[in-house]
Amino acid sequence: MNIKITGTGSYIPSNIEKNENFHQHQFLNTDGSTINHPNEIIVEKFQAITGIDERRYAKNHLNSSDLGFFAAEKAIADAKINPETIDYIIVAHNFGDVKHNAIQSDMLPCLASRVKHSLRIKNPKCVAYDILFGCPGWIEGVIQAQAFIKAGMAKRCLVIGSETLSRVVDKHDRDSMIYSDGAGATIIEATEDEGGILAHETASFTYDEAYYLFFGNSNNQELCRDTRYIKMDGRKIYEFALSNVPNAMKTCLDNSGLDIKDVKKIFIHQANEKMDEAILKRFYRLYKTDIPEGIMPMSIHKLGNSSVATVPTLFDLVKNNKLENHSLTKGDVIIFASVGAGMHINAIVYKY
Amino acid sequence: MNIKITGTGSYIPSNIEKNENFHQHQFLNTDGSTINHPNEIIVEKFQAITGIDERRYAKNHLNSSDLGFFAAEKAIADAKINPETIDYIIVAHNFGDVKHNAIQSDMLPCLASRVKHSLRIKNPKCVAYDILFGCPGWIEGVIQAQAFIKAGMAKRCLVIGSETLSRVVDKHDRDSMIYSDGAGATIIEATEDEGGILAHETASFTYDEAYYLFFGNSNNQELCRDTRYIKMDGRKIYEFALSNVPNAMKTCLDNSGLDIKDVKKIFIHQANEKMDEAILKRFYRLYKTDIPEGIMPMSIHKLGNSSVATVPTLFDLVKNNKLENHSLTKGDVIIFASVGAGMHINAIVYKY
Repeated sequence: MNIKITGTGSYIPSNIEKNENFHQHQFLNTDGSTINHPNEIIVEKFQAITGIDERRYAKNHLNSSDLGFFAAEKAIADAKINPETIDYIIVAHNFGDVKHNAIQSDMLPCLASRVKHSLRIKNPKCVAYDILFGCPGWIEGVIQAQAFIKAGMAKRCLVIGSETLSRVVDKHDRDSMIYSDGAGATIIEATEDEGGILAHETASFTYDEAYYLFFGNSNNQELCRDTRYIKMDGRKIYEFALSNVPNAMKTCLDNSGLDIKDVKKIFIHQANEKMDEAILKRFYRLYKTDIPEGIMPMSIHKLGNSSVATVPTLFDLVKNNKLENHSLTKGDVIIFASVGAGMHINAIVYKY
Repeated sequence: MNIKITGTGSYIPSNIEKNENFHQHQFLNTDGSTINHPNEIIVEKFQAITGIDERRYAKNHLNSSDLGFFAAEKAIADAKINPETIDYIIVAHNFGDVKHNAIQSDMLPCLASRVKHSLRIKNPKCVAYDILFGCPGWIEGVIQAQAFIKAGMAKRCLVIGSETLSRVVDKHDRDSMIYSDGAGATIIEATEDEGGILAHETASFTYDEAYYLFFGNSNNQELCRDTRYIKMDGRKIYEFALSNVPNAMKTCLDNSGLDIKDVKKIFIHQANEKMDEAILKRFYRLYKTDIPEGIMPMSIHKLGNSSVATVPTLFDLVKNNKLENHSLTKGDVIIFASVGAGMHINAIVYKY
């Protein structure tokens, strides 16, 4: 028995938020002091580091569970399955449904219940739960689906990553430009087909790192101190990711028994272009090998960082030949890898 | 190989909120209209149905993840294990950390990361994630731990249920008297010992039932419409639970291959005394058997409904002979069962 992704779908919100839309923002340092550069320079520097030109924001009336539902519908259609045959619906997110212009996270019921409700699935044996695991939540959901299949508890799972980060950003923080909204979904199932998940690796670094990403106050100290936003210590995260992600990817690849030369594509969490490039460089350096051209598809330029949604969305785009100069052929060995709040890291080596 | 609970711990907050403390509340109907009874009568009726005399509220400076940490410390000590040997930390909750007098849920990082951080565990291979699954979250966490162990991905897991419902109640809603705070934790591991988990059953009813428990506005229509609280349609939940929980428990018991006469204790989610008694009655009626005396330990009178925390706390109390007239002997067959937001139902048949 192998465990394969038999269907994919993604939902990319239609509202485009361009970098120039931030020119009118009042950016402040964390201590509330003014930044001594015009916004044009701030935005330009931001673009140079992260690679982000624009990002997507969900329409005001839509919430994270709606985005997840749209992506799920597509994955089900792509897999050509009857939704009533799904054993698990696993939704990865980090903030629940946050209504436009509201500050509360709504997770009652959990988002997986909402998605199942919207899919009009009747079968009560389809277990619907949410996982919170930072940006690596979708990959971890796939690893959990694999566990249920291996343990004989499931044959077919729907794993979704959905997030509306635009609803939890501090507009006075330059980092707010990173975040975006989106959803990706996949059907994972037991199959006699060749390939599938070959190895996986997960690590949670919490001793010193637990609060590198956190929920904190606005840089504008005049705003309500009871309201908090997504916040990060970008410098520490960058160093942490560089030290630990390449090693986790290597452990995973080595466990799969495959060679670095076998790897055709690396789908890495779209957090920051410079960081992703540095991770890739270190990963190949661990094997004393040159980086092959076109190994790392990137969607961050146009889609920003939509947390749990980046990896399944990127995979869906490449699989459907929607990302220029990238495609997949049956038998290709690929790596999924992510890093994020927790701090969690994970990777999957997968034969397409 | 068997999968057993090798350690338990619970944290019961020291602040006691008695029923008479609600005599000064302004209770309203859902449409905002006044309830035509004095509070003394409202509270008396509430007590007669739910069985709740008092409940526990966490101290103001503590959050859900703190409660979970306290319970986890005890479970680790009880199991006499080195915390560095834990493969998974699974935290079930529904609202994240909600600070006293604040309305936002903080889940960045996830609560499992916070608990692992507080436990000072260094091992990055200990995977820390949160599950959202309504009140049945702790039981579902145990089922997931079992899956990881069966799939060869773990040997030892820490499963925690922690909640501070006092932070999300609408003080103008009579149902606010139900909810309380607390945490329960257990170590689940692969062992050569006899007994352990014999069968499990999970169901998610979302077609009509997804929003029986929901996040909604205060009954006091003068309060901010952007602020929401835990809300429920009690009548529908009561009927739903009575129709579906006994069947799920029976499926689980039948799958274990054991007889109803073998069951020594039933640890059921402490939601409402009358409802739990009615579930028990229907369950035994399915077997055309009388209810044995002392089969269902109850903690609701003194502890209220602390969501994910009720079942592991109740089990911890009985295991440690802290609940009058209840005890456990090695070899006893017990059932864990829960129902809650989602709407989810689950059950485990377990040999102590």
